[in-house]
Amino acid sequence: MTSKFRHVALVGKYQSATTSGTATEQSRHILQGIADFLREQGCEVVLDAETALHTGLHSSFASLDVDDLGQHCDLGIVVGGDGTMLGIARQLAKHNTPLIGINQGRLGFVTDIPLNDYPQALLPMLHGEYEQESRPLMHARVVRNEETVFEALAMNDVVVNRGGTSGMVELRVEVDGRFLSNQRADGLIVATPTGSTAYTLSVGGPLMHPSIPAWLMAPIAPHTLSNRPIVLSDQTEVMMEVVSGRDISANFDMQSLASLLHGDRIYVRRSEHSVRFLHPVGWNYFATLRKKLGWNEGGY
Amino acid sequence: MTSKFRHVALVGKYQSATTSGTATEQSRHILQGIADFLREQGCEVVLDAETALHTGLHSSFASLDVDDLGQHCDLGIVVGGDGTMLGIARQLAKHNTPLIGINQGRLGFVTDIPLNDYPQALLPMLHGEYEQESRPLMHARVVRNEETVFEALAMNDVVVNRGGTSGMVELRVEVDGRFLSNQRADGLIVATPTGSTAYTLSVGGPLMHPSIPAWLMAPIAPHTLSNRPIVLSDQTEVMMEVVSGRDISANFDMQSLASLLHGDRIYVRRSEHSVRFLHPVGWNYFATLRKKLGWNEGGY
Amino acid sequence: MTSKFRHVALVGKYQSATTSGTATEQSRHILQGIADFLREQGCEVVLDAETALHTGLHSSFASLDVDDLGQHCDLGIVVGGDGTMLGIARQLAKHNTPLIGINQGRLGFVTDIPLNDYPQALLPMLHGEYEQESRPLMHARVVRNEETVFEALAMNDVVVNRGGTSGMVELRVEVDGRFLSNQRADGLIVATPTGSTAYTLSVGGPLMHPSIPAWLMAPIAPHTLSNRPIVLSDQTEVMMEVVSGRDISANFDMQSLASLLHGDRIYVRRSEHSVRFLHPVGWNYFATLRKKLGWNEGGY
Amino acid sequence: MTSKFRHVALVGKYQSATTSGTATEQSRHILQGIADFLREQGCEVVLDAETALHTGLHSSFASLDVDDLGQHCDLGIVVGGDGTMLGIARQLAKHNTPLIGINQGRLGFVTDIPLNDYPQALLPMLHGEYEQESRPLMHARVVRNEETVFEALAMNDVVVNRGGTSGMVELRVEVDGRFLSNQRADGLIVATPTGSTAYTLSVGGPLMHPSIPAWLMAPIAPHTLSNRPIVLSDQTEVMMEVVSGRDISANFDMQSLASLLHGDRIYVRRSEHSVRFLHPVGWNYFATLRKKLGWNEGGY
Repeated sequence: MTSKFRHVALVGKYQSATTSGTATEQSRHILQGIADFLREQGCEVVLDAETALHTGLHSSFASLDVDDLGQHCDLGIVVGGDGTMLGIARQLAKHNTPLIGINQGRLGFVTDIPLNDYPQALLPMLHGEYEQESRPLMHARVVRNEETVFEALAMNDVVVNRGGTSGMVELRVEVDGRFLSNQRADGLIVATPTGSTAYTLSVGGPLMHPSIPAWLMAPIAPHTLSNRPIVLSDQTEVMMEVVSGRDISANFDMQSLASLLHGDRIYVRRSEHSVRFLHPVGWNYFATLRKKLGWNEGGY
Repeated sequence: MTSKFRHVALVGKYQSATTSGTATEQSRHILQGIADFLREQGCEVVLDAETALHTGLHSSFASLDVDDLGQHCDLGIVVGGDGTMLGIARQLAKHNTPLIGINQGRLGFVTDIPLNDYPQALLPMLHGEYEQESRPLMHARVVRNEETVFEALAMNDVVVNRGGTSGMVELRVEVDGRFLSNQRADGLIVATPTGSTAYTLSVGGPLMHPSIPAWLMAPIAPHTLSNRPIVLSDQTEVMMEVVSGRDISANFDMQSLASLLHGDRIYVRRSEHSVRFLHPVGWNYFATLRKKLGWNEGGY
Repeated sequence: MTSKFRHVALVGKYQSATTSGTATEQSRHILQGIADFLREQGCEVVLDAETALHTGLHSSFASLDVDDLGQHCDLGIVVGGDGTMLGIARQLAKHNTPLIGINQGRLGFVTDIPLNDYPQALLPMLHGEYEQESRPLMHARVVRNEETVFEALAMNDVVVNRGGTSGMVELRVEVDGRFLSNQRADGLIVATPTGSTAYTLSVGGPLMHPSIPAWLMAPIAPHTLSNRPIVLSDQTEVMMEVVSGRDISANFDMQSLASLLHGDRIYVRRSEHSVRFLHPVGWNYFATLRKKLGWNEGGY
Repeated sequence: MTSKFRHVALVGKYQSATTSGTATEQSRHILQGIADFLREQGCEVVLDAETALHTGLHSSFASLDVDDLGQHCDLGIVVGGDGTMLGIARQLAKHNTPLIGINQGRLGFVTDIPLNDYPQALLPMLHGEYEQESRPLMHARVVRNEETVFEALAMNDVVVNRGGTSGMVELRVEVDGRFLSNQRADGLIVATPTGSTAYTLSVGGPLMHPSIPAWLMAPIAPHTLSNRPIVLSDQTEVMMEVVSGRDISANFDMQSLASLLHGDRIYVRRSEHSVRFLHPVGWNYFATLRKKLGWNEGGY
């Protein structure tokens, strides 16, 4: 029996500038091993063009740009950390390509297959035994003088915040056009359930199970002491207008737009696209939480 | 044009033991006024039996037990605070009777019509101009040795906690039979969106918009420092098993079952019933939040 | 060269009711080993009477009640956890006996010598090479109708809180007779720096270095959202008066006085006694914090 | 009887760029009134040169630079908000000039005399009836390649933080040369008790009474979930070394040094100078807390 997935995109972690030669060598070796394994299962393997270039594997494998991968392939396998996965997932979302994550470092929230275990984990998945999960994406746009000047997708969060040497930012927040609050703070985060295990966690936000159809809005260092994170329906559009402050930026999963002006409005709504993750049967979100958050440690 | 609602149940705040004669006198006067107003709109007014008894209005009005009110009436008007409303709402939920809240003290989250404004606010509502909102109820049961020994509905929260002079409680938590965590803490709260503006707020929980189909689980004084509140689907059943601790109780909107035993399990799932609140057109959940939480005050 | 300390009190962990035979056997073995080691260094060893009784070591060693140990001995060695140490330290404080802690389980904040390392750690300490540290004690009393009805020392904290099935407690707080605030909450903790790594940590309190001459007052689940823990001089007297609530208790390092009445006042001031801990040279409070709080773990 | 203070420096709020003509006119009027009042009490009034210039009062009054004010005057009266006071207090600290604050807007923590009440409040103070309070200052320096490249005094806090569009900063913290922790966060605040009612309050720090001889170190959005604010002796020197991150700055009461490099070290110790505040007899720190933090509001 051969793989249910015929055309598999393989994506590695490539950060050319900061990656040493040894690390690149190691990545090549790992990717080569995974590719060989996939071919043995009857899959055609296509490398992400950037990965192919940086690892020198472009001579051994077909390679395509991410967008073409999405059109051509019926599965993506990402080898790296959660950051690598989020970047690729955003780009492939419009093609609805399902994704499997193999973590190359320590366990991730969404890259859940340990590198050492991949053959045992992937084999049944390639033959159709997996658990599928859908994660929402945010569509965000920045509007200046009634014109959209920036658009981006975000899988974790949209953050509007002050600059490093400036004081507080003041943001006027509306939900579906209805006034919620004026937030005076270091900044404001609007996160997906996926993002609830990232930045919002540092500012006291709750965890949100991936099945919850909601945004989490959480202030960073709020000036008003009775401010609290708030869970809002993901069917609403959240708007943040820059009221005052200097050197303010908007950040979409770390893609940044600096130098916002007073009056700029950041709109966040649910994207029509979602990300599909495939997990081994028996995968358990709660087990990941316990491990990542060290719930058996750090007490007193 | 007469009222869309013909049979209106009227419920007041009655806490016989702690209510002074003057307060009772005042309540009678208020209820009499509202009843007169309702009759003028063509409504038949039936008083809650307890309210009638404690205010001495049983001679002027028909009165029924809460359960019979639910069968007989097509609208309930509750005059008091959120606590009064929650108590009545739980009892009327199985009859699906819509409810309007008039607050007799300071503004409540669900008793949103100020006493002074009730004629202007009620008039259009009685003629069908209102916003309707549905709030979930929790059904909770305590299971001992595989037998259900207690059952209750809760609109705000289910709380399992230690006694006043005992140490920590340890609870094993499962969600749909899947292990989530062992919680060592003063206690654990499972709250509805309605309850997210009550006890969980004091332990650092987020606000949850009433439209979010979720439970909020929040530990009270958790021993593990990386513990966080978690938002879970209200389609799941949450189970808390008493693992260790002394003098432990379960509390359902303040209805209590004391002296839990090790091995006792508290199950929480969504009730088949919901509560229907009617609000004046233009009612605004966010405005209530701002006012109740003092979002323009308490900064530094 | 023989020990600088001639008369050494040895105290073990004894919780007769909950300790199994095997655990007792193990404790006896450990204490016997430590006692032999101390004798080899020229120390006279006297056992705490309770320890002697519960381990059956009363036939091999002299034993004294804790109070007599304080009068007779010039050093106390406590084998157990932080709880055991706190209990003994409170009792020995008036004798100013220095204390060394050997932890029998996992590392404690004040029982800092691992069981396996005790010979190497104790040897130089017995000969005078150690770091000495002084920790404040609280003296607390409960006053009813202008009479003191209860007095206790506490090394960690004084806690006034609600019962398990009752609502909020309201406490009026004064500092040196000056009104601070009315606290409506599950309860209120007044802690020493030692106690800042215990219960207050669970309710969001800061860590306080043992050298800080201060109390930390922290509310448990405060109703007012702008409430915050507050650091107060330990030269002040803190007073908490029970204003309202049911089933309220005061707890002094877990020694409890239940059934407080409205109007009862709990006064907390610095005791004239302190606790002296001896640590191996190079002992490091910060290293203990890092290990106990898992500061290299539990991120995301 | 004439004033105990002969030479009184008068300082106003002057933010030329952002202050409208009307506001300037109003300030002039207020300062003129206070100056007249002081002269009636027998004081010689000297204006801060900047204040004189921006209000146009340099023709009616002698004026001096802040530093000369410190040498010449035996009292400073500051009219404005806490920000104005902090700026002047830092500059006058080395002269040990006592300071009185009149708040021109809403009540401040250290500008505690309402504008409307100043004659009644100042009269007894000028004749020696006041409460005096001393507040510590921090001396901070930035060391690069073993050379001090920046020095500043701070009355509230020293903040090292990330830029607006960059990720986390990693700081290695030592206290008196002893390693405390590696902090990965948006930034790190070291605050005085005065500063404990400012920025640290927004990141969950406790309040610290001004009498506590301590620094409060609090992380901003810490990555490690078991991180907590920590109270350290103000007799220690706290060092923060930039380990990683981009676009990092150090901020001393909002005076900023941008573009820190990896390896830069920020040292914070207690300045030899302090600030002396004079308050009306009966002044009450706790009353200020209650008012500023809205402790009777913002509950639920």
